[in-house]
Parts: sequence; C-alpha cells; structure tokens
Amino acid sequence: MSAPNRATLWGRVLVDELAEGGLEAVCISPGSRSTPLTVAFAAHPEIEVFSQLDERSAAYFALGRARRTGEPTALVSTSGTAAANFHPAVIEANQARVPLLVLTADRPHELRDSGANQTIDQVKLYGDAVRWYAELPDPEADERKARSLRTTAARALAETIGTPAGPVHLNCPFRKPLEPTETEDVPDSFGETLAGRGRAGAFVETDRGRPTLASSSDAVTDLADALAAADRPLIVAGPADPVDLAELEPATVLAVAERVGAPVFADPLSGLRFGEDVPDSPVVGGYDAYADVLPEPDVVVRVGASPTSKPLRQTLAAADADQYLLDPAGEWREATFTATDLLAATPGSVFEGVRERLASSSEDVGADGEWRERFERAERAHWRHRDEALEPSTLADAPFEGAVLATVFEDAPDPATIVVANSMPIRDADRFARPRAAELTVLGNRGASGIDGTVSTALGSGSATDDPLVFVTGDLSLYHDANGLLAVKRCGVDATIVLLDNDGGGIFHELPIADFDPPFTEQFETPHGLEFERLAALYDLEFERVEPAAFADAYRRSLESEGTQLLAVPFDAEASHRRRDVLAERVEDAAAEAFERNP
Amino acid sequence: MSAPNRATLWGRVLVDELAEGGLEAVCISPGSRSTPLTVAFAAHPEIEVFSQLDERSAAYFALGRARRTGEPTALVSTSGTAAANFHPAVIEANQARVPLLVLTADRPHELRDSGANQTIDQVKLYGDAVRWYAELPDPEADERKARSLRTTAARALAETIGTPAGPVHLNCPFRKPLEPTETEDVPDSFGETLAGRGRAGAFVETDRGRPTLASSSDAVTDLADALAAADRPLIVAGPADPVDLAELEPATVLAVAERVGAPVFADPLSGLRFGEDVPDSPVVGGYDAYADVLPEPDVVVRVGASPTSKPLRQTLAAADADQYLLDPAGEWREATFTATDLLAATPGSVFEGVRERLASSSEDVGADGEWRERFERAERAHWRHRDEALEPSTLADAPFEGAVLATVFEDAPDPATIVVANSMPIRDADRFARPRAAELTVLGNRGASGIDGTVSTALGSGSATDDPLVFVTGDLSLYHDANGLLAVKRCGVDATIVLLDNDGGGIFHELPIADFDPPFTEQFETPHGLEFERLAALYDLEFERVEPAAFADAYRRSLESEGTQLLAVPFDAEASHRRRDVLAERVEDAAAEAFERNP
Repeated sequence: MSAPNRATLWGRVLVDELAEGGLEAVCISPGSRSTPLTVAFAAHPEIEVFSQLDERSAAYFALGRARRTGEPTALVSTSGTAAANFHPAVIEANQARVPLLVLTADRPHELRDSGANQTIDQVKLYGDAVRWYAELPDPEADERKARSLRTTAARALAETIGTPAGPVHLNCPFRKPLEPTETEDVPDSFGETLAGRGRAGAFVETDRGRPTLASSSDAVTDLADALAAADRPLIVAGPADPVDLAELEPATVLAVAERVGAPVFADPLSGLRFGEDVPDSPVVGGYDAYADVLPEPDVVVRVGASPTSKPLRQTLAAADADQYLLDPAGEWREATFTATDLLAATPGSVFEGVRERLASSSEDVGADGEWRERFERAERAHWRHRDEALEPSTLADAPFEGAVLATVFEDAPDPATIVVANSMPIRDADRFARPRAAELTVLGNRGASGIDGTVSTALGSGSATDDPLVFVTGDLSLYHDANGLLAVKRCGVDATIVLLDNDGGGIFHELPIADFDPPFTEQFETPHGLEFERLAALYDLEFERVEPAAFADAYRRSLESEGTQLLAVPFDAEASHRRRDVLAERVEDAAAEAFERNP
Repeated sequence: MSAPNRATLWGRVLVDELAEGGLEAVCISPGSRSTPLTVAFAAHPEIEVFSQLDERSAAYFALGRARRTGEPTALVSTSGTAAANFHPAVIEANQARVPLLVLTADRPHELRDSGANQTIDQVKLYGDAVRWYAELPDPEADERKARSLRTTAARALAETIGTPAGPVHLNCPFRKPLEPTETEDVPDSFGETLAGRGRAGAFVETDRGRPTLASSSDAVTDLADALAAADRPLIVAGPADPVDLAELEPATVLAVAERVGAPVFADPLSGLRFGEDVPDSPVVGGYDAYADVLPEPDVVVRVGASPTSKPLRQTLAAADADQYLLDPAGEWREATFTATDLLAATPGSVFEGVRERLASSSEDVGADGEWRERFERAERAHWRHRDEALEPSTLADAPFEGAVLATVFEDAPDPATIVVANSMPIRDADRFARPRAAELTVLGNRGASGIDGTVSTALGSGSATDDPLVFVTGDLSLYHDANGLLAVKRCGVDATIVLLDNDGGGIFHELPIADFDPPFTEQFETPHGLEFERLAALYDLEFERVEPAAFADAYRRSLESEGTQLLAVPFDAEASHRRRDVLAERVEDAAAEAFERNP
C-alpha cells in the first residue's frame, strides 16, 4: 500500500487494519478535519459507509446497528462540538454494552487551547464512559509509528467487544494536507514495509476469551443445588446486552427452567420472550401487570440488565429470597441491592453448567407442578383481559396506548426487528406484548433509558438486516430525534413507524406531579401541538392518521407495502392511563385469585 | 420560607439564592428527577422560565440568551443522557466565555453504577469545559447543609461571570418524593432559620474584581510608547466575549486608534464594526478580501478571540511586527503563535491607560496620515466592487451568497440583533458586511465554530430584548438544529430567518477535497434534498422562496411584518464560490494599488 501523503497514509492504514479486524460498517458525518478517515472509509470495498449530517443522530444510528448485530460499528466526526454530539449515544453504549468505535478527528495537539478554530479539548472527551481511550500517533511515514497505529486500531476494535462490550474512543489528530494529494512526505517504498502493507489478514489478531465458570465449579454447584432445593424458583431475564448475552442459548435457559419448574419472567428486551421455543415453555410475559400480588419466590436467578418493570423490581426487592446475578462483567446491575450472589461469568456457561449438574440427578428437583400452574393461571387471566380490551368495539369506546403495543407484537411478521422507544412505549410493550413463537428481535435503549436518539437507533438497527423493521415511539421521542428520519432516504432504510401521539409527555400523568398544575401542564406534560403529517412530508414518508380501533388494519397494510409509513395514532394520555389502571385492577384481582392471595 | 419536603426545600432554597444573586432566566427541559428544580423555578416570580423539549436546543437557547445579555442563564435537565445533550453548548460556552449555569438533576449517589434506570455517571460530565463543578449536598433539613447549598449557589453564579466567564455545572441529586407533597421531613421551624429563609438580598454576596493594569504600569507605558513610535500601527478586534469585553468602550479604542493613526480591523462579531461612532472612525471592514496584499504593520494590538478571517490571521502571522494581545483571562488566543506580548488585564483598562498616556504628550505620535489613507482607499475600492456586484441586474446574472449577507447588514433596522451561523455565512458577513452607524448586535458561535445549535442560539438571543432579530444560516446548520424552531412558538420569539440554501455543505467547495469525487459529493457536499418549505410548515413559520436579486425586497417586507418568516434563497454553491473568487481578484488588484504593492 502506498499513500500520497502522511494524513492519507494514516487514514488508509487505520481503515485497512479495522477492515481486516472485521469492521463492517461506519457512520460518517461530513467535515474537513476528518477527510483522511472519510476518504479511506469511502474507498474501502468491504466497509459499508452511512453518511449522516447530524452527529447526534449518526451516533445513535451506529448504536442501533451495533445493537442489532452485536458487531462493532464505527463513527467518524470532524473536530470540535461535532464530537460532543456523540456523547449521549456513547453513554447509552456504555451502559447498554454496545460495541461502538468512535473516531474523532482532531487538530494537531499544539493547537489545543490556542484559540484555533474548531479546536476543543477532545482528550478523554467522554470521561469514564468508554472502555478505552487512545490518541493516534501524529501521522508520519515512520515504521514504528505506523505499527503502533495498526496495533492501536486492532486493540480498539477488540476492546469494543470485550467484557463488558462498549464504546471505545480514538482521537485522531491530522495535519494538512488532509485531501489525498501527492506530496513527498511518504516515500513509495513505505508501502512495502510491514507497517505500510500490513500482514495478510489483520496486522495483529486478538482472540479474546470470556469469563466462564465450569460446571464443576463451586459457584455453579451451589446454584444448581439451590435451584434443586427451591420450592418457588424464578428466573428473571432483563434486557440483554448485544454482545455479552449473545451466546446465551434460550433453549439452555428454558431447559433449566423446565427442570426446576421455574417460570421465566422475560423482559421484552431479553431475547427470551419471543422465539420458536416460547409457546411450550415456562416463559411469562404479563408479570408487570400483577407483580404486586406475586407469591414470594425463594430462589431467583437473574440475567441481563435491570428489568424494565418497576413493579417487578420492587417485588423482587421485597422478597426474602436468595437472588443470584449472572453477569460476565461482574457488575451488580441491581439497584435495590437485594441480590445475594454474583456469578461473574457468561450466563451461557452458568446455565449450561447448572443444566449438566441437574441432568446427572434423577431425583425430582425444584418446585412442584402447582408453582408453575399458578403462573399459568395468572397469565391466562392477564391475556384474556388484554384480549377483551383489544376487541374493536371495546377499544373504540376505551382506547389505550397499550393496545397498539399489543397489536404491534401480535401481528408483527416473523422474523422482524421491533424497536421500542422509552417512556411509555417500552412499559406498555412490557405489559401488553404476549410471548410468541416468532423470531422477533426487540430492541430499546434501556442503558440510560433516554428519549433521545431513538429514531436513529431504530433505523440503524434496520440497516443491518432485511427483516421488516417496526419502530414504536411516543411523540416526544420522535420529535427529539426527528433529524434521524433523514436516514430513511440517505441510508435507504424502510420502516413502519408507529407513533403514539398524545401531544406531550404522557408518562408524567403516571407520576404524582400530575396533581400539581401549575406547573404540570406547561413544564411537564409540555403540549407542543406539532402536526406530524408535516414532519412526514419533510422526510418524504407516507403518513396515515389512524384511530386506535383501526390500527390493526393500517399496521397490516403498512407491513405489506414498500417504503416507510408513519402511522400516527392519537391518544389522550390521561384517559389512556385511566384505562391502563382499570385493566391492571382487573388483572390483579384475577392473578391474586390464581396465586391464592388477597390482592 | 417553609417547605413541605426536603427535595422541595432544596429546590426552593437554591432558586431563591440564585434569584437573589441576579439570575433572571432559566431554560428547562421536562423530566421527573428535576421536579424540585422545575417546581421552584416555575413558582419564582422574578425568573423567566423557558421550556424546551430537546436538551441540545435548550442549552444553545440559554447560550444565545447569555451571549446576548452577558448575564448568566440557567439550564435544567433531568438525569441521564438528557444532561449529555447539553455538552456541545457547554463546550461552546467554555470557548466563547458565555455565562451558563448548568443544573443537572441526578439520582441519589448510592445508585451510581448500580444499573438503576436513567442513572449515569454525571460527576464532572463536561470534563474541563466548565469553570467550576460542584455537587449539591444531599437534601436534608440541616442548617449547615442548607447554608452550604446557598453558598454553593451563590458561588456557582459568580463563577459564570468570573474571568474568564463561562459555564458552571452543579449536579443536583434528589430523593423521592420529588413533587411538593407534605411530609414530616422538614419541620415548619426550619423556614425561620437563617439557612431556611436566607438573608435579605443574597445569602452571600460576591463582589468580583477584574484584572486591570493601571496607566502608570510598565506594561501600559511600554504599549503606549510602542504605539507612539509605530510607523504602521494596527488594531485588530476579534470576536468579543459577552462578559469579558463588555466593559470595553468602543469610543476608547477608537480614540487611541485616531491618536496613533491606526486602522481598526473590526471582526463582525467584535462589537466594533457597527455603532454610532463608526462612520467617522478608522474602522475597517473589508480586510478579509484584501488581506493578502496588506502592507506589513509594525505594531499590532489585538483584542477578543482569534479573528474569523483566515487571510487576516495568516497575514498577521507572517508580519514582522510586535503583536500585543489584550486578554483579561491571560490566554494566548492566537494559534499562529506569533504574538510577542500578552497583557493579562481588561482591554478597557489597557486602552484607557494608553489613551491617558498619549494625551499627556503633545507631540505627533504614531503613523503619518498616509498610512491611514491607504486603508481608506482600499476600503473604498472593496465596497465599490461589492456595491456593483449587488446591482440587481448584475446579481441576477451572477448571484453569490455574500450578496445576501451584505443586504442583511446594510438594510437591518437600527437597533437589531443579527445572528450568523458558522461555515460560509459568518465568512461572508466578515467580507461583505460594511461598517455602519447602527446599533447592530452581531452574534455567532465562534468559540468552537460548530454548525450545531445555531437556530436555538439565535432564538435565545432574541428572547432577551425587543430588538428585531435576524438569523442568517446555511441549510446544514438549519437542519442540524431544526428542533430549535419549536421555540418560535413555545418561547414566543419572532425572527426573520434567512436561509442560504445550496443543498449541502457549500463550504467544502472552497476546500481542496472538492477535486476528489468520489467521495466529494456523497461524503462532503452531502446533498440532502430537504424542502424547507415543509420544515416551515411543521413549525408554523411563514415561508418564502426568494431569488437572490429579489432578496432585498423580501427582507424588507419580513422586517416590517409580525411573526417569523423563513426566507429561503437558493444558490448553487460552486457558482457562488466562483463569483466570490472573481470579486476577490478585482478587489485585490484595487487594494494592491491603494497599498502601492504588486498583487
């Protein structure tokens, strides 16, 4: 590989090494200082390049893609505040363990704090929110420097998928000329050096092991024994990390659950609520509605992040139970601080070990049949009440946002990717999306649970596969990342976008501040009066305004058609919450009966 | 002051102290954790509250207001990525020395790194980009803690207008209940304590001096002597900081300039290009066009940030001159590193001192008349060529973006606030906006020179006065902060928005990368095809598409009418740049003649 000048050389070597290391996609925002990176990425035959004009949206787009694939996605920005626009997505990637490789172009270091244009302090710009920070060596046709560059690139990529996976930041200073002009500063012969051409395959290769516990280990033995001895075991699967939980086979979890008679409470983001094994399995999806009347478990095994369901978290916190956390990164991701044991190993290795140990025993282990049956009764009651509420005539009289979430999941094609925005949509998905035997990949930003960047997260995830993409959002989330809609055209992603439009922050109706107005309406609910038909026009989306009772039909039509549709379903937030409460009361009564408890 | 619970108490005490300290405005984004702050701000009779749904826009809105007023403006966000969305504006405030008080609500500290919802590491979230970071004490009805809270609030406010002025970050952890419910945790008597009620006026008062140099000081004497002895003195005023340069009287600078025969190169953002004294003064505005043929100065006095004009910066760097920087914060804001002396004091005190010293001498000092006259000839040539290019018939044949900037300034009402976006608009303002005897307050984000947040910066600055507001932007800047347009309705700001629409990053046509396509068009120019009429519809703006030759009329009509108009002027970026180059060549020839140099 020869290069016409040192900046161009640097861009090429870096991108070459990243491609050899397996990087497949990059999201680039236009800028001048990043020219050497942009030119090298655009010229590389094996890396898919997405161009995004707003860096905040760009970062969430890359996050969405990395979340969907579990593979690192790179980001490129120019110097200055452009790089700071990545910060929200970097934080989400940190907390949700999403592999992002952030490349920020920078001015040469002697310009820092000099008043130079577009020059800010980019050193450790994202603080502790990245797995690794490094600064590229100043470009020069020097063999050791170029080897350092290749090694840094390889390590950066590997760190994004370490344990835990997450964002890595490489700050990349460049000097002019930035464009690929011919200069004398790189001799032709440099391309023949090991540093210049790289090795066949990656220059350095990283083979990264994961922390595992053997089935013979004390920790696994203890857990297996605890489950075997449990009368009321429970498995709770929170939102899954795209890399760290990727190797967890649902079948293994379900086999253990079957063996010990434990229901599996599967968060919609856990990867366990939907899938081929689900219908004949102990997967439970309605717990959020009746968590307050749950019987107390005695052994709880938890994987993934903290569950979306607050009633569930509170119920677990109050339980007098041994609670085992399985986390490969060794973090106690459980903010009630009631867990008792942490197994810092891949959940896959732990469940496999437990399965092996229990298989070697021929005894009856775990709960009796009645424990599981109580949950089956509660589930039946929950979904029956939900289905009644979904009847078109009932829905026309008593609409609620959860009905849309229910339909989105129930009628989604198989396979499909479904991205659910924060605030009420993910909560309604948790409560109203019934477990299904379909390959639904369900994603949400539950790392920091912000309402920002969700449009781009959705479109980025859609860019990774040919699966139909459904994105469910509230109006504030849609407004917040409206710029992200440009990717429909620029990045060629099709989607069905379902908008629950209650003109403001509907979730605040669920909070006690709703009783204090002012300032409730102006400062919390914040009605904005935006007409989303006009937003759809701006981004050339097809638009349809659909009443709740007609949503199922419109949804089906959208899924059957090409292009991107924005289906806006109007709701009154307060009425929707009242309806939600009424349903919850009914379900709680029925579940309490199922659990033989007083509600 | 009594308070129904500790979180509410904390919000009230904090806001009470900030109000007593002089805080007049706050920009709040809705959220739950920040409820105690929101409730307290909304209830305070003396603080104006702006509600913004996108935190990134909120931060730039506050920045714009603080930049316009030179007074601190506060920002409130909930916990999580919301706070990270402030980061770009915090960086701009840091580099441009704008007083921003950033209040981020946080979860109680024991929830950090626990996997709790919407809980991120907010400690020192903005790194070194703030003047001061502090964390509020955990709310409790404890007198020492409450006094600490009041003192912290007072100090935070004072630090925003220290030397240099800039952003301050207070992280504010709150525990539930967050809404102003009655609990027993604050005894009624607490309101009677000194900490609870505060003192009359501020609890603590900060009287902050500025670094000054006396006229008798060696430094001022030396500078006065150097100017007196100079044959070719020059004063260069770069972009002004809203606080640090506020006390610099243009009349004082101009008096010194007159006395020593120095032209004053006044950046459009310097506060010196426009004003009542300008027509009869040595203010020069066309330097950007003819900097390459400037005669070499021998003594240069520089105030403000690094000038917008790159040709000027390069010419100054090449000059064999003594260059004096005047900066109260003692920063060498000059990235060519050719300045020779730094006077770390307020420019006001230095210019006043120099004026006094020179007044006491009856001799002829400084340059002879010919030095000034050469600049007057160059200026006449530059503005004559510009005016010819602005003739409607000429403009119809040879449109260029600079013509719009010229008209925006020439025809602006007096007084007016004009906000100019980065990339080409500010460069064209620098070159084509003629000095005028009008009170034009001209603002731009030249701290980090990003294209982000400019809509909100403009509307925030407009919120501070009744002056007509004009905002000039390219299409990428407008798209980037399109969300900021919601403030037109929500915050009741009227503006004339002038859009130079060349469908992408026109500035890249000025860079050498323009010769490399691909990737030029797709990755740099990035045509997006957005129809801004639809954006106007989304935000209920009046829209008009105006050809360049008809712009002056449309602009006048907009200024005469109520409401907010978006005037979109279409351009071909490449043709505009060619026209700019042709004009520059002509002016350079004429200026070279004026300076008696070969071009």
